[in-house]
Parts: sequence; structure tokens; C-alpha cells
Amino acid sequence: MSEASAIVVPKGFRASGVKAGVKPSGGLDLALIVADVPCSAVGTFTTNRVCAAPVKWCREIVPTDSARAVVVNAGNANAATGARGEADARRTAEDAAALLGCKPHQVLVASTGVIGHHLPMDRIEAGLRAAAPALSTAPASFHAAAEAILTTDTHTKIVSHARDGWTLLGMAKGAAMIGPRMATMLAFLVTDARIPSATLQPILSEAVEESFNCLSVEGHASTNDTVLLLASGLAGEELSGQALEHFAAALKDACQTLAQAMAADGEGSTHFITIDVEGCADREEARTLARAVADSPLVKTAIHGADPNWGRIVSAAGYAGVPFEERELSLGINGVRVYDHGAPTDFDANALSAELRAHRDVHLRLHLKRGTASIRFWTCDLTAEYVRLNADYTT
Amino acid sequence: MSEASAIVVPKGFRASGVKAGVKPSGGLDLALIVADVPCSAVGTFTTNRVCAAPVKWCREIVPTDSARAVVVNAGNANAATGARGEADARRTAEDAAALLGCKPHQVLVASTGVIGHHLPMDRIEAGLRAAAPALSTAPASFHAAAEAILTTDTHTKIVSHARDGWTLLGMAKGAAMIGPRMATMLAFLVTDARIPSATLQPILSEAVEESFNCLSVEGHASTNDTVLLLASGLAGEELSGQALEHFAAALKDACQTLAQAMAADGEGSTHFITIDVEGCADREEARTLARAVADSPLVKTAIHGADPNWGRIVSAAGYAGVPFEERELSLGINGVRVYDHGAPTDFDANALSAELRAHRDVHLRLHLKRGTASIRFWTCDLTAEYVRLNADYTT
Repeated sequence: MSEASAIVVPKGFRASGVKAGVKPSGGLDLALIVADVPCSAVGTFTTNRVCAAPVKWCREIVPTDSARAVVVNAGNANAATGARGEADARRTAEDAAALLGCKPHQVLVASTGVIGHHLPMDRIEAGLRAAAPALSTAPASFHAAAEAILTTDTHTKIVSHARDGWTLLGMAKGAAMIGPRMATMLAFLVTDARIPSATLQPILSEAVEESFNCLSVEGHASTNDTVLLLASGLAGEELSGQALEHFAAALKDACQTLAQAMAADGEGSTHFITIDVEGCADREEARTLARAVADSPLVKTAIHGADPNWGRIVSAAGYAGVPFEERELSLGINGVRVYDHGAPTDFDANALSAELRAHRDVHLRLHLKRGTASIRFWTCDLTAEYVRLNADYTT
Repeated sequence: MSEASAIVVPKGFRASGVKAGVKPSGGLDLALIVADVPCSAVGTFTTNRVCAAPVKWCREIVPTDSARAVVVNAGNANAATGARGEADARRTAEDAAALLGCKPHQVLVASTGVIGHHLPMDRIEAGLRAAAPALSTAPASFHAAAEAILTTDTHTKIVSHARDGWTLLGMAKGAAMIGPRMATMLAFLVTDARIPSATLQPILSEAVEESFNCLSVEGHASTNDTVLLLASGLAGEELSGQALEHFAAALKDACQTLAQAMAADGEGSTHFITIDVEGCADREEARTLARAVADSPLVKTAIHGADPNWGRIVSAAGYAGVPFEERELSLGINGVRVYDHGAPTDFDANALSAELRAHRDVHLRLHLKRGTASIRFWTCDLTAEYVRLNADYTT
């Protein structure tokens, strides 16, 4: 997913990633994505009541049909920073607008990193001055941008797709503080397809519902969750009908690929877990059950220990708040039925444990008999390494 | 709290704790509490939809005014065990009733341990035959019972209180799978106060609301949560008016002491965390905020690392679902105001970190301006030892 050769860049977009000195590590930490023409731009954002200043800025702007740029910094979330934080987000947009020759309200901003510290504006401004001349249409520039938005991620998360004359490119970051609810961690997508923002917003929202909103590392919803999609329209005619459906399908696929990459890169994780919940009354019910299982530290540690301790899984489903009857519930782990209509089965626990130990991928399937709705959800296990990483993150 | 000399035993109760061979460790694992006379008995239970067979049994019986005994086994939860599990719970009550000379519906049962395995009934029955002749009114017998209900707890949790001629004794277990919602882990209380079950049930429910329901280790609500309170009435006249209020206060105090002991004994924990949430519209809102903070792995690991990373605390409050405004929120850690009406303060992070490193007790105080309701909630930190214990628990 991260080989530069495999990435196609949509027409009308340039990117760069530079070292602004915000990350203590000294790595790339400021990304700039610029469109040559005014773009349709839509987004989805965190529902956290403590919401970052850049999220407030973007919410005022999208949906729009005149976006020109996205500025992202890593190493500082500019969240819980009060009025000064809001002024800093605005100033970032103003500085970028001056450099790019557009208006501040054409510049979207996003931040990720530690909460509660003021942005080092001198470094942000110097970073922008270095990033603007580095802008390029080369795939390597988009890889640099994708690297500059990372925090504790172990690798970049970037995806692209070409079809029907248009191309779509997406990038994301996130390895912890991931429990999106109607929003997600940072993800940025650009396309040259021609789709006005009024059409684009519901398509993005639906893609997010079945991708980033089906993702959890430890269930802690971030203050900064942001997904932005910019469409330059340079690929040609406005999409409609079946062509628009093709785009929507590609967008959902791209978002799912990025969401899976985030779960697989969950801090300290040793297992990537896919949870299918089926037979529910509606999609929200299925998501609620999947999230309860995904967020249970007891489920996550059992899988870390290669322990097919299915009692933890069915009991997590039991407290999710969905009023099912125990006899309606069945559970499979990696295709092995371990719980069948409310009663244990006589499965080979040693063989299943050996399989969990041998493979990174785990598949849980919960089946109910309440309806036909289903969901696929992604998470990872909980390890001592996660604790170590998060006990030591700021001090 | 666990010294035998400090315990007073209410009139009319005997107890014992024996080794039935259910726990792999070979320790005490079957507790029997017997009343000489029919008792008022009330309870609160798990709201988990996957609910253990002994919980279903008890729910059929309480509230009652003719309870005679409680049988508890550790090492096996008899949960998610289907129809056979329900038959096993009933048979446990029948066997105890035969030994004690009462009816099966006068015997309450509870189980704790691994989920999804059938009870070894031969061992339960042999254990009951050993426990019945060992019954005694001695404090040491109640300590043996309190030890026999433990699983991964590191010490017994027992409390007693004497006032106005009556006495109250309570015991509890629990160190993980603790996220009670309208119920709790196992706790058993006995008193010789004379209070009919119709009066006793609301008093117990209110005590549970402000004790076990303000407790979380990792937020995973158990299938077996059970609180039972038996009142023999042998202390004299029926309590009413101010005397009843005294009893209710003592009961709440006993439940809070046991709940605090469970959080302090949270698996692998190195910090005991008290969370005060104040200035809320109602108690449920305060509890929702406290639970979100208590259950965040990022908050728990930060405290484990002695890191005053308050951004994780306010962001956990932010996703709890309570519609507060960020500027209404303030946060203190161990008396130090770190976040004031939506903006960071200039506190000494190094000094606060040193204090968190030096002391096991941590106090968080979240203050809002939505009303006058408040709650006090208890939890513990998340450590690599918790992960190790729970990655290795059944296999």
C-alpha cells in the first residue's frame, strides 16, 4: 500500500511534507496539499465535545466549492487550547493563504499530536515557507505529506485508485486514541472527478460510516478526528448515475483500506482483528455490538494471549445495550463455531489457540437472529507494549 | 479491613469456606452463608444480556422474606452454559437445601470464574458436604467464606459495622471484568437488623447506585454481577424512621468501602484513582462522565506512567455523550488546577508528575457548570501486568 510506484496522483493537486520542528523526534511534521483550481470539499469531524481548534475552523468552511489547500501539522493537536488555539488555527490558514495566493477561508487546517499545548507558531510559519516551494505533483511528494501527518504510526497509510478517467488518492494517520464516532482520525482524500460538494458530502458520509466509523484501537474518541475530501473536477464532466456509483464504491473501498491499515498499525498490537456482526435489526445495532467487543480490554488481551476465551466476547456483546436473547447468539472464531445459540460447543481449544498464536489476522463472527443488518469492524489486540507506549508518551 | 479481630458477626448467621477443587490453584473455592431463621433478602444483579445461570436463579427468588442460605463457588462462573448451566444452578440449591433442611427456593447461589465451562457438579456437591458441618458463627469462618469467593483478587474484602443494637457484615470479590451497570460484582451482606424485604430493596438499590455502580476496573460488565443482602431480624424490633436512616447510611458506607477495595485491588494496578465529577445536571450525567474517564485506556496508562497528561482526561469527558460546552469544563489533578474553563493553565508538570510517581492514590476532579449534581467514582490504572494477567488467564 505504501510503494511510491503504485500511487496515481489526481489532476490538479500538488503536495509536500517538510520538517517544521514541531515533533520532538525531528521528523517530517508539516504537510501541505494544494489544488490548482477551486475544489469541492466535504468533511466529517469528531463528535467529541472537547474539539480541536482546527476542527472548529474546518467545520465553518465545509462543504464548499472553493477549497484550495489543506495544511496539516503533527506533534501538536491544538486541542483544549482555548481562544488562543482558535486564533492559531486561523493564523495558520492566513499564512498559507498569503503564500499560495488565495483567501484564508479556502485553506483547511488539521492538527494531531499532544493535547493542551499551544502551537509553536514560529515553527509552523517557517514550515509553511519551506513547504510551499517544495510542492510537486510527484508521487514522492504525496508520500512525504503522508509521512508528515503521522505520530506514533509505524508506517505511512496511502491508497489510490483510477477508473473511468478519474483518479482518487487518500492518506490517513492513526495508531491510538482511535474510537471514532460519526467521524474519524485524520484522513485526506483528493480526486479529479467532477462532483459538486452537495453531491459529494452524502457520498463521503456513507463511506465513513462503513470504514472509519468501524474502527477502534482503544475506544478513546479523539478531539481532532477529521476526514476531508477535495475534488478538483479536472478529470472532465460532472459524474452522475452509474459513474457516480462507481466513484462512491471506490471511495468506500479507499476509506476501508485506510481504516484497516490504522487498526493493523494499532500501537503495540500483535493481532489485527476483523469483527463481523450479522443478523441485527439495523446497522447501528450491529455497530454497537461490534464496538463493545472491540473495546473490551479483556477481549483484546485474550486474543493477545492466543486464548480462545470466547466467554469474554459473548459477555462484551451482552453489555453493549442491545436487547438480544442469549439463545439467539452464536460466535465463530476463525471459522470455528465456539458458541451456538446460547450454549458452548465442544471445539478443540488447543488447536484454535495454536492458530491464534501462529497468525496475526483474527476473525470473529457474531451472529444474531434479530434481522438482516450487518457490519464489519476492525480493531487490534491490547499488549504490554501499548501500555508502555502510552505510559511514557508525554513525559 | 481484613483483620479477623475487627469483624462483628450479625446474630443468626453462620459461614464456612472450603476447598471443593473448582479453582485450579487448589485454594478455598466454596463459600456457604447460612441463616438460622428465614431472612428478608434483596439483591441487585448484572444487566448483561448474557447472564449467568445463578443470576437467573436468584432473580426468581429475591426479594423474599424466607431466605436461608447463600452458596458461592469461585473458579467457574456457570455463565453462557445454556440449559445445562441452569439445571446445575438449581441442583446446587437443591443439594444445599437437603443438607440444611430447608427448601431449594430458600437457597441463593452465585458463581465466579471462567465463563463457558460447565460446573463440575461432583466437586460442588462434595464441597457442600464438607462446608455444612464446618459452619460457625466465628469471625474466622466469615473470613474463610470471604476468601473462598475470590478469583484473581490479592486479598479478602470484608467489612462490618455495629450500631443501635444491630450489626452489618459485608464481603465482596472482584479485581477484573469490573464495569458494573445497575449491578456489580459479587458482594454479600448480612445483618441482624429487622427490616422487611419491601423496605430493604430500595435501600440496597440506592447504596449500590453510589458504591458498586461507581466502580470500574476496565469497564467490562460481568455476566455474574450479584449483590445480596440478608437480614435475619434477630437484633430486635423492625427499624423505621431515623433508625432506618442510620442503617441505610451504614449500608452505603459498607458498600463504598468494598467498592473502593475492589478498585484498589484492580488487576496489576499501581494507582487507585478517585474521580469526583461535580456541577452536573443530574447524577446519571455525572456518572457517565466519570465512567468515560475511568474506562479510557489512555487515561489509565497516563496515570500509570505518572504523566499529568490532562488532555486525555478532558477528551475522554468530551466523548462521553454529555452535551457540555468546553468553556464550562475545569479539571484538577491532586488539587492542582490543570485546565480552567476550557483553557490550559501554567501548572508545574514536573512537580505533579513526581507526586503521581510517589503516591498510589490519585484524585481527579472534573467540574462543570450545568447544575449541582455530583458523583464519586473509583478505578485503577492500566499496567503491563494487567495485560499479562489477562493474556494468560485460561490457557
